[in-house]
Amino acid sequence: MKQLNVGLVGYKFMGKAHSNAYRSVPLFFPDLPAMPVMKAICGRDQVGVEQAAAQFGWESTETDFGALIARDDIDIIDIGTPNNVHCEQVIQAAEAGKQIACEKPIGMTVAEARGMVDAVTKAGVKHTVWFNYRRVPAVALIKQMIDEGKLGQIYHFRGTYLQDWIVDPDFPLVWRLRDEIAGSGAHGDLAAHLIDLARYLVGEFDEVVGMDKTFIKERPLELEATGLSGTASSQKGEVTVDDAMLFLTHFKNGAVGSFEATRFATGRKNYNRIEINGSKGSLAWCFEDMNQVQFFSKEDDARHQGFRTILATESDHPYVGAYWPPGHIIGYEHTFINQVRDFVTAVANDTEIAPDMVDGLRCQEVLEAVTTSCRERSWIKIPG
Amino acid sequence: MKQLNVGLVGYKFMGKAHSNAYRSVPLFFPDLPAMPVMKAICGRDQVGVEQAAAQFGWESTETDFGALIARDDIDIIDIGTPNNVHCEQVIQAAEAGKQIACEKPIGMTVAEARGMVDAVTKAGVKHTVWFNYRRVPAVALIKQMIDEGKLGQIYHFRGTYLQDWIVDPDFPLVWRLRDEIAGSGAHGDLAAHLIDLARYLVGEFDEVVGMDKTFIKERPLELEATGLSGTASSQKGEVTVDDAMLFLTHFKNGAVGSFEATRFATGRKNYNRIEINGSKGSLAWCFEDMNQVQFFSKEDDARHQGFRTILATESDHPYVGAYWPPGHIIGYEHTFINQVRDFVTAVANDTEIAPDMVDGLRCQEVLEAVTTSCRERSWIKIPG
Amino acid sequence: MKQLNVGLVGYKFMGKAHSNAYRSVPLFFPDLPAMPVMKAICGRDQVGVEQAAAQFGWESTETDFGALIARDDIDIIDIGTPNNVHCEQVIQAAEAGKQIACEKPIGMTVAEARGMVDAVTKAGVKHTVWFNYRRVPAVALIKQMIDEGKLGQIYHFRGTYLQDWIVDPDFPLVWRLRDEIAGSGAHGDLAAHLIDLARYLVGEFDEVVGMDKTFIKERPLELEATGLSGTASSQKGEVTVDDAMLFLTHFKNGAVGSFEATRFATGRKNYNRIEINGSKGSLAWCFEDMNQVQFFSKEDDARHQGFRTILATESDHPYVGAYWPPGHIIGYEHTFINQVRDFVTAVANDTEIAPDMVDGLRCQEVLEAVTTSCRERSWIKIPG
Amino acid sequence: MKQLNVGLVGYKFMGKAHSNAYRSVPLFFPDLPAMPVMKAICGRDQVGVEQAAAQFGWESTETDFGALIARDDIDIIDIGTPNNVHCEQVIQAAEAGKQIACEKPIGMTVAEARGMVDAVTKAGVKHTVWFNYRRVPAVALIKQMIDEGKLGQIYHFRGTYLQDWIVDPDFPLVWRLRDEIAGSGAHGDLAAHLIDLARYLVGEFDEVVGMDKTFIKERPLELEATGLSGTASSQKGEVTVDDAMLFLTHFKNGAVGSFEATRFATGRKNYNRIEINGSKGSLAWCFEDMNQVQFFSKEDDARHQGFRTILATESDHPYVGAYWPPGHIIGYEHTFINQVRDFVTAVANDTEIAPDMVDGLRCQEVLEAVTTSCRERSWIKIPG
Repeated sequence: MKQLNVGLVGYKFMGKAHSNAYRSVPLFFPDLPAMPVMKAICGRDQVGVEQAAAQFGWESTETDFGALIARDDIDIIDIGTPNNVHCEQVIQAAEAGKQIACEKPIGMTVAEARGMVDAVTKAGVKHTVWFNYRRVPAVALIKQMIDEGKLGQIYHFRGTYLQDWIVDPDFPLVWRLRDEIAGSGAHGDLAAHLIDLARYLVGEFDEVVGMDKTFIKERPLELEATGLSGTASSQKGEVTVDDAMLFLTHFKNGAVGSFEATRFATGRKNYNRIEINGSKGSLAWCFEDMNQVQFFSKEDDARHQGFRTILATESDHPYVGAYWPPGHIIGYEHTFINQVRDFVTAVANDTEIAPDMVDGLRCQEVLEAVTTSCRERSWIKIPG
Repeated sequence: MKQLNVGLVGYKFMGKAHSNAYRSVPLFFPDLPAMPVMKAICGRDQVGVEQAAAQFGWESTETDFGALIARDDIDIIDIGTPNNVHCEQVIQAAEAGKQIACEKPIGMTVAEARGMVDAVTKAGVKHTVWFNYRRVPAVALIKQMIDEGKLGQIYHFRGTYLQDWIVDPDFPLVWRLRDEIAGSGAHGDLAAHLIDLARYLVGEFDEVVGMDKTFIKERPLELEATGLSGTASSQKGEVTVDDAMLFLTHFKNGAVGSFEATRFATGRKNYNRIEINGSKGSLAWCFEDMNQVQFFSKEDDARHQGFRTILATESDHPYVGAYWPPGHIIGYEHTFINQVRDFVTAVANDTEIAPDMVDGLRCQEVLEAVTTSCRERSWIKIPG
Repeated sequence: MKQLNVGLVGYKFMGKAHSNAYRSVPLFFPDLPAMPVMKAICGRDQVGVEQAAAQFGWESTETDFGALIARDDIDIIDIGTPNNVHCEQVIQAAEAGKQIACEKPIGMTVAEARGMVDAVTKAGVKHTVWFNYRRVPAVALIKQMIDEGKLGQIYHFRGTYLQDWIVDPDFPLVWRLRDEIAGSGAHGDLAAHLIDLARYLVGEFDEVVGMDKTFIKERPLELEATGLSGTASSQKGEVTVDDAMLFLTHFKNGAVGSFEATRFATGRKNYNRIEINGSKGSLAWCFEDMNQVQFFSKEDDARHQGFRTILATESDHPYVGAYWPPGHIIGYEHTFINQVRDFVTAVANDTEIAPDMVDGLRCQEVLEAVTTSCRERSWIKIPG
Repeated sequence: MKQLNVGLVGYKFMGKAHSNAYRSVPLFFPDLPAMPVMKAICGRDQVGVEQAAAQFGWESTETDFGALIARDDIDIIDIGTPNNVHCEQVIQAAEAGKQIACEKPIGMTVAEARGMVDAVTKAGVKHTVWFNYRRVPAVALIKQMIDEGKLGQIYHFRGTYLQDWIVDPDFPLVWRLRDEIAGSGAHGDLAAHLIDLARYLVGEFDEVVGMDKTFIKERPLELEATGLSGTASSQKGEVTVDDAMLFLTHFKNGAVGSFEATRFATGRKNYNRIEINGSKGSLAWCFEDMNQVQFFSKEDDARHQGFRTILATESDHPYVGAYWPPGHIIGYEHTFINQVRDFVTAVANDTEIAPDMVDGLRCQEVLEAVTTSCRERSWIKIPG
């Protein structure tokens, strides 16, 4: 069987999620045109990266990204690093002729994202962005249903991505709370997913107006930067990103949208919820019940209309037939497995894959317009 | 407008619910062929009954049931007393030629119930039983849907009526916990409703096997019998009814049923829930969300099937158009208003009304068969 | 018993809801310091108002508002008319020394609302506004819980009031879709309730930015103006109000808020939903399940935290002990009964009542600021 | 690192689930005292078993079970075959000194199960049974909570395991519908899980009474026995197992239980739901929302009690810290990964593991008592 050798950079949360996807895809999707091979994992800390390689099942390690992309035995570069190095790594990987899968948001600025699109376009490589929520079977089913006209004309998009992991004021100043590394807070981390889902399901943004908020302005410094749950020091530093971001939008097709991303919604853990209302029906989905689609149809008998819960685990639902019988639900990690399946298929067959870097750029344009709107306190037009 | 004068006996929980129904029906159903007039309320305690008359809006009071039924200005006798006096009161009222609405369960025994049916039949009066849950709009909608064939052949009925108001072992020995007054515990109080709903929606019972349980065998005596929340004494008495009753059934049409009624389901307040599975679909309902029907249809597009929540508040749903616009929910008391509407219509127009005393008898037969099954530890055939 | 004579103007949807409340309050709240008497109902159409009086139980009718307020036997004037006449009627009633209960939004403009506040203040009468959702027991419980500190510092308010009754483009141009009568569309009708709840539960607004949308710009004229479900003509007219209104806010206390009101959310009937996130917990409520409070507490054992559904039907929950035993839910109309209970108590005892006209004015200020924001496409500061 | 070589027999649904578990456990549980090695997979069809080995990642294949257990390089035998061969395979594997993991129900009869217990006991090997639902994090959390006394004295267990995959009368006569292979229908397949959960969470059964039902008595023969979704022929054969099984129980500790397992609950896909009510609280769980625990506590403030939804994805919940951050749900397959983790730990450390064959026997005793009860139409005592 044809093989595609993968080199992954980053071995924390996303590194684990991506690794698991490569490791599991052959069992669930045995008929792929090519299979990914877990060739090399890269990280600056040698001990850490070797431990990750052993745990996740990578054949070799690199501590230098340049060395990784210089290897001839690597076909795909997968980028799971913090946001401030995506741009440089993508451009280098493209120049090295690698196929690219990059975490979101793809860059710190629209300018970075444009550079990345230029680089991958010039290099003629395949590229995708890990907006993994598109690959929830329930979300893919929603996309199908919209494309089939189940909603008619779309009027409303309503997206909230709610978490609560930094409500405690003593939670330390991890990299995701520092502008120079993360670029933004809830905005790039959470709203980016909502924006991508809105573009995927509704269409392009026309203009936005937004507001941001940082509720806790200082936090303990980390003793050691150990990821999300770092240990706190007694010294404090300034939080330089948003805790919450809210914005409104007009879509180009006349629909209107409301967006809210926050890390201060006590009790909401990964509450990535969308609702779309159209002239013929409505659809809703929430990650915390990720296998379920809520669907209301005006085409049902008038006396028997209601929001129905479709358990998206049937064999004729997207992706999910590869897993277990109906009613046997899947979880977060399967979104990555599904995306690996689609990306290796696209690379092997030289076919289209979405979302790609252009989608990453479009998302970045909206993210940046919202940020500008917050700063200038005005409506901002999305370019293009 | 034609009027029907009502005399109500009983002024506690059910007395209040019935009174409110007579009081409210003209506002919501102005086009009835006759309107009930709240003529007299009857109870043994003069102070209590006068207070009730003033509060609920009855024109006069009686302290003697014989005096009530002797009155020429009373058309309808409504019986909201404890179970041990229903039989005698119904028979007397029938002999006096009154139309009769009786609380459930109609009697203490099948023998009593047969006597009541005989009496009302001989007297040729209209009669109904307050199985009020049939008049929840959502339940009436379920009945419509079954009659329209939405479920196909019925395979399963699953009924649980769960409460928790006597979980505390210090809750006193109120009349509902004394066999000589209540006849049974959760069985006649709660399971009776499930049995009636099962007969209404599925069909007649063929045979049953059951088990009962009294978890707390002694409780403080009441200082004063003041209803459900009586004050406890330091002396104890024996609980002579079931705390919980469970049984299984074969229906005559081949469906099977599971029933559970209990007052020991901590956290369940009035959790009267049914689910019916058929060859073409399923329907479910729970009183705690009484305005909602759960409906699954195999006739929906295969990829889009799911349990849908029909909010039974549309103008073309049963009863509910009389109240408020869609989405403006109604509550417990409206089931009584709806039944008053139907009963006065039946009396005024001399038309059929269900459930009637025969339904009360059928329910009593199942109740008694279950009780016999518990005692004899065997399957018991339902007569007829 | 002391009595308070009521004169009601308006006999459609709100007229029915208010009438039912006066009619039912004695049965459920027998211990009130005074009881309302349904003295007179007023409307311009004599046939209509007489039919309403008969159906709802009013002692007399008036066809002229001036005549109504001139009557010596009227203590309370209740205003359930369209928005464009509230101001004039409130001022006249105040000048006549009547106690006043007025529908929301109280006026067409902030200027009107100020005039109304001035009039009632000068007259020294009691006044309330029918922001009836404050009197849902679950909402009143939420207020208690916030006041007790269950949420800690509030970070987020999220309010959506979603309906779908005009999704059909052939739905006619009823008065609620005409600016000169209604003043606005979803904004004054639905967002007004959200604004009042946010002020009640979170605090005062600081500034807002919003957007409005009219999806269907022309609709068939009504043949006859018969309320919400008017009959359509073949001629069309312009819709002059918003179909949807979205806005964001900073509250004065540092919380942020997101608001959305629409009549184009297919499948949502009366989906008035709020969620509040604080440093110690979260609370949520939706009218379609109006008896339920969602509560998350960080004070629960860390391993056992979760959103809990409090069924607000216990005897120690606000208002609801007056009705039925635990688990026996109540409905929309009970919010009006509860408000009548509180208003007659305030009038009889000369005590405070909220919401009053000042609350109505504050709401109007926010409504108008949002409208200005939509027109000027900018953030607008709330006065005061 | 220490290794434990596994030989698996069976490569259909359970074969895939078990294989995935061995394959994934090192990534999620890197600190295990030993790691399973996927040494050999066994099945009678050489082509099929080789395809499975390639897909799932097994190092070698066997087509003869005797050859498998004869191999010195196999430590653990995992049995994922149909029920009629479990007994023989377990006994052979025990005699060969292998550690054993066996699918449920362990045998066709109590006699078989006793033989299996004797064999493993005599051999002194470790043994476990794939009652995988004990390893849902939410279920393990429920067990913790009960052990901590959160429920007090247990009164009620209520278990329903509802599926609908054979509602269509044209669904063919697969092995699961044939008594000689499956031993029973919904009973051994579904009720076995409920019985195990009841024993795990409540305690031992005392006596049972039950009823079974086969709604569709004849079905098309399979053209080729290809598992659950076999292709139908035009010839028919008799269904020799139950479609549904219902039973009631007294537990030895005084609790009562209601059980229902069916493949005819239209719309229910893998609706394995339990609810337990105790003197201090209640707990409920349903597989279709497998990451959620429903918990009601009488120890909460009286005004704020309600069923809360604990999303069992926190790092201090059982098992789940090994996977993803809070709110990132897991699925069906993780129950097997968790059980592999526990079984290899028990084997490596020579510690206790539950459920084991004795649990399998206890379950079989209840299954058989229920079957006897159906046949004899009477209550049946559980031995022991």
